Amino acid sequence: MNLNLCPDELASLCQAQSRRGSCPLPVTGIAALTEAAPGDLSFLGNARYKGEVPRSRASVILVPADYQGEPGPDQELLVVPNPSAALALVCARLEQALWPRPAPGVHASAVVSPGARVAPTATIGPLCVLEEGVEVGEGVHLQAQVFLGRSVRVGEGSWLAPGTVVTAECTLGRRVRLHPGVVVGADGFGYEFVQGRHAKVPQIGRVEVGDDVEIGANTTLDRARFGATSIGEGTKIDNLVQIAHNVRIGRHCILCAQTGVSGSTVIEDYVVLGGQAGVAGHLRLGRGAKVGGGAAVTADLEAGVFVNGSPAIPLMLERRIAVLKQRLPDLFRRVETLEQQLAREKELPPAAGSANIRDT
Amino acid sequence: MNLNLCPDELASLCQAQSRRGSCPLPVTGIAALTEAAPGDLSFLGNARYKGEVPRSRASVILVPADYQGEPGPDQELLVVPNPSAALALVCARLEQALWPRPAPGVHASAVVSPGARVAPTATIGPLCVLEEGVEVGEGVHLQAQVFLGRSVRVGEGSWLAPGTVVTAECTLGRRVRLHPGVVVGADGFGYEFVQGRHAKVPQIGRVEVGDDVEIGANTTLDRARFGATSIGEGTKIDNLVQIAHNVRIGRHCILCAQTGVSGSTVIEDYVVLGGQAGVAGHLRLGRGAKVGGGAAVTADLEAGVFVNGSPAIPLMLERRIAVLKQRLPDLFRRVETLEQQLAREKELPPAAGSANIRDT
Amino acid sequence: MNLNLCPDELASLCQAQSRRGSCPLPVTGIAALTEAAPGDLSFLGNARYKGEVPRSRASVILVPADYQGEPGPDQELLVVPNPSAALALVCARLEQALWPRPAPGVHASAVVSPGARVAPTATIGPLCVLEEGVEVGEGVHLQAQVFLGRSVRVGEGSWLAPGTVVTAECTLGRRVRLHPGVVVGADGFGYEFVQGRHAKVPQIGRVEVGDDVEIGANTTLDRARFGATSIGEGTKIDNLVQIAHNVRIGRHCILCAQTGVSGSTVIEDYVVLGGQAGVAGHLRLGRGAKVGGGAAVTADLEAGVFVNGSPAIPLMLERRIAVLKQRLPDLFRRVETLEQQLAREKELPPAAGSANIRDT
Repeated sequence: MNLNLCPDELASLCQAQSRRGSCPLPVTGIAALTEAAPGDLSFLGNARYKGEVPRSRASVILVPADYQGEPGPDQELLVVPNPSAALALVCARLEQALWPRPAPGVHASAVVSPGARVAPTATIGPLCVLEEGVEVGEGVHLQAQVFLGRSVRVGEGSWLAPGTVVTAECTLGRRVRLHPGVVVGADGFGYEFVQGRHAKVPQIGRVEVGDDVEIGANTTLDRARFGATSIGEGTKIDNLVQIAHNVRIGRHCILCAQTGVSGSTVIEDYVVLGGQAGVAGHLRLGRGAKVGGGAAVTADLEAGVFVNGSPAIPLMLERRIAVLKQRLPDLFRRVETLEQQLAREKELPPAAGSANIRDT
Repeated sequence: MNLNLCPDELASLCQAQSRRGSCPLPVTGIAALTEAAPGDLSFLGNARYKGEVPRSRASVILVPADYQGEPGPDQELLVVPNPSAALALVCARLEQALWPRPAPGVHASAVVSPGARVAPTATIGPLCVLEEGVEVGEGVHLQAQVFLGRSVRVGEGSWLAPGTVVTAECTLGRRVRLHPGVVVGADGFGYEFVQGRHAKVPQIGRVEVGDDVEIGANTTLDRARFGATSIGEGTKIDNLVQIAHNVRIGRHCILCAQTGVSGSTVIEDYVVLGGQAGVAGHLRLGRGAKVGGGAAVTADLEAGVFVNGSPAIPLMLERRIAVLKQRLPDLFRRVETLEQQLAREKELPPAAGSANIRDT
Repeated sequence: MNLNLCPDELASLCQAQSRRGSCPLPVTGIAALTEAAPGDLSFLGNARYKGEVPRSRASVILVPADYQGEPGPDQELLVVPNPSAALALVCARLEQALWPRPAPGVHASAVVSPGARVAPTATIGPLCVLEEGVEVGEGVHLQAQVFLGRSVRVGEGSWLAPGTVVTAECTLGRRVRLHPGVVVGADGFGYEFVQGRHAKVPQIGRVEVGDDVEIGANTTLDRARFGATSIGEGTKIDNLVQIAHNVRIGRHCILCAQTGVSGSTVIEDYVVLGGQAGVAGHLRLGRGAKVGGGAAVTADLEAGVFVNGSPAIPLMLERRIAVLKQRLPDLFRRVETLEQQLAREKELPPAAGSANIRDT
């Protein structure tokens, strides 16, 4: 990462309002308050943790204006309006160092079809393959070993990590980010059972990925049977997620790792799917619906609901049932006790004359 | 996709029995009835949706012989025996355009060991690696960036997508299709716990993939400890599926996305595993057994059963229990009511003298 | 695999104490007792299966000193102290044949940045990409099509399979094994919701993988927000596993296939996670804790506990509840019976006069 900032640079980068104490070291790392060592930058992002500041060994700590404490020896406090936002400024600077923009151009080892069009400011890294009819926009960066099939279009400013594959006819919007191993446009999983065999249903549609979408490592998005599987603008998808054919995902959704969405399901804007959740096919999840981790959605969801469990039901009910489920051993005992009580009462000879007459 | 068919070509391709109306446009897309725009081909695949035909904006619609309606303006109805089958004919034609057969030969950028044997009609795409002893059959197509390890054999007519990896000694049958990122033959996950460490158990077996198997993107099939992990003829496996070492899967099975099958389990012919299902190790799933999505199979399954849930139990029982589980809050209330009723009865003075003496 | 050992070689390799019978064939395969054919080596690894030895068609069988049986015709029994260990010796020999050490050096087709340092005994296979500042230790083997980002360090004796990706700044210890498609160092999944959009939180940390770690095919390990996501020495991770940013996994853990661990969770030494298990974020799993397959861990775990289910609870309780859950239909019937009994009692004339008058 090669972070190496003197406190003055840091203060300027963070737009510090004031400074307390002084630190002789350059800052070479970033760490949480309790884990920081000399040379590290840390920050008080949440007032709950202010007790950790005096004990922190960080050389520089970003604190909010209302933080009262004093720095330790060889430590500097930088007072900023919002420590988290200030840290993000530092991180953004570091990110540029971590992922430097390479010079534009096509690496000599890339295999680019004569019919592919690459914008002059784009970078095609080593060992990429671009088939016929590919169009790569301005400022696009294919890092290395990327595959773009026939007639794929990649919008300006997009970044594709090593080992990503985008197959024929699929399109990526602007500023799309694909992490390593993402597969866009594998065939949908469609067969008809004919005479004891699964006959393939041709999958001739495509995948359309909107602007500002980010997709995590080894996630797979299948092409549509016809038409398009689509991912809306601003949606973020984590690692190892499966999106089946003809799924339509709206804008600004969040799909956590290892979720799976079955064929033809429609997910409206601002939906959130927790990790390992599964969604059956041909459903509609309304705007802003939330699905808990590991939940299995088997029916349409109204806008704004929060569901959990398998099958997924409203969160509050699911929580209550989860608690009651753990009390099942107790419930079985209670029912048994009731049965014994009733049996005993019936047996009791004199007391309640009538009730048990039929039994005696 | 570059679909561009005039209605006459389309009628001939679909073997239309008769035509109603006329359409001035060439057909450039395919879409469902409700989503079609002018220029699209659509079809009435299910009589339930016949009400959608008059409202559809499609330029050409495939309809069955018993469909009575009239076309709209600039719309043509093609009467065919089976609209779905007719559409499949069109799609198959399009599929050829989407995935054209490349010219045979080895791309100059591929790295092919001198000891590898490639059939004259096979195509080895750019940046593939073929190690010693590889055998590639007639008509095989390695699209790009494929890896075939030592002594791998690929049967005639198979197609391997970009980024697939087949490791040493594994074999693929004829007409096998591997989607991007598939890994065939990674080591099985086997260790012995010796003196506080996990010592690796060598995994020296292989994977054998049968004829007409299709495997989805980023799916992984582990090599056997010894002998073979095997996938039977005609079986179809979706994306992100895990097949552990020494698993044996029969013929014509369906494994939906994100399922996992643990070591040494035997799956007989025609088994279907729903998405995200898990199967424990050393089990046998009988012919034609069906496992619901997300289910966890922890015991052998008889032929033909349909199980669901976690642990998986027969579907009907699982559905019933799922319903009852949601009525648990009610059940707890009912049991509490019973307890109160019984307690009250005991307290009632005259009836049952003795039982409550200690309480009074 | 090209196994071809005459019985004498085999006896010497296994350090056989004595031999019974004789086998005219060279040994060309390894198989379980019940599956072996002539030409195969088999072994009696567990006394439970000793009844299978006389029925086995294997040409050579490794048996323990206390095995009394006699060989069949053309069959040889090799008496060894520990048949499993003896088999491992044979397999280790075969493994060398399966994965021969290639000659050191950098393949002509690899793209190695001038600033990368490769130890003289390392092997950089075809079509690998090494960016600036990479350091590759002695005896490292990058098989093919591997990507190492800026300043990645790979410790001595490590092996990286085709298609693995290690991104900038990440480090691998010594004797690390990465199977095909592993992604080390994709961005963590972190966004802040600002004005209706998910703004990316820069992920500028790294991943640190300890010595003797093995990671399965297509598994993904995300880089930290800052600091490091870390995997402790000797830990083994199966295929298609997701490790989120800032997770810390201890030494000698086992993570079975398709498990997912959410952000910032700490997993101590010797923890075992069953297949498809999920662990929520910001938790701590104590030393030696065990999590059943498919379980969902939603709270910290004490050292040594064994949990199962979703949400995960102690195994014994979970098993008991699983059994009771299947008896829910019966419980609902029993409660209904109780209710009817009580209702009937009340109806009976003398006891509680008033209540049921309307019914009579």
